[in-house]
Amino acid sequence: MPESTIHPNHMLISSNDVEGTKVYGTDREHIGEIDHLMIDKLSGKVTYAVMSFGGFLGLGHSHYPIPWNALKYDTELEGFVTGITESRLNDAPEFTDDSWSDRRWEENVHRHYDAPPYWA
Amino acid sequence: MPESTIHPNHMLISSNDVEGTKVYGTDREHIGEIDHLMIDKLSGKVTYAVMSFGGFLGLGHSHYPIPWNALKYDTELEGFVTGITESRLNDAPEFTDDSWSDRRWEENVHRHYDAPPYWA
Repeated sequence: MPESTIHPNHMLISSNDVEGTKVYGTDREHIGEIDHLMIDKLSGKVTYAVMSFGGFLGLGHSHYPIPWNALKYDTELEGFVTGITESRLNDAPEFTDDSWSDRRWEENVHRHYDAPPYWA
Repeated sequence: MPESTIHPNHMLISSNDVEGTKVYGTDREHIGEIDHLMIDKLSGKVTYAVMSFGGFLGLGHSHYPIPWNALKYDTELEGFVTGITESRLNDAPEFTDDSWSDRRWEENVHRHYDAPPYWA
């Protein structure tokens, strides 16, 4: 069954397969992968993609939470495209263990990435 | 970082952690687990939970796709509750490899579980 849910040609993707999906930057260059997703338990809405950059950008951290609304799936590239740049990642509101339950951090990070809030 | 995203007390859950979340039936008895989720690539909406029953109900298949809208997260139980019964699972529209891209199957399975369609 898990195998049978892998169908790159249709609109649904298994959560197992999202991990590892490539993310492309403004020039459609490959900048990283999705490591895992954060999901709102009550609404079932994906809220953040925690991206892994594998040291590609030489950033201080290897994982960054990006608002889901700042990512757009591109069926041609078979990955997510984003306008996020290295400097924007470096300037992102600092992430701590408490950030997920801190609405102010959520507001700041959505504003930082020009992404509409998922709770609106 | 993956560790820091595990916070059972707040509203967000990592996709890594949804796998294995318990599902409870009408009498709040434990009937199975979520194996993985199906996510709509474009909207980022969780559409189905593929449940694993571990032979508990003696069903013909060990995995069943359940519309996300047929599950409700219960913060007290720390799991999902559903009104799904064994007979309803047995009567569910048959699932094949093509079902994910078959809107008619999707309509049937949502109707079967009295779940509002995610695409509405």
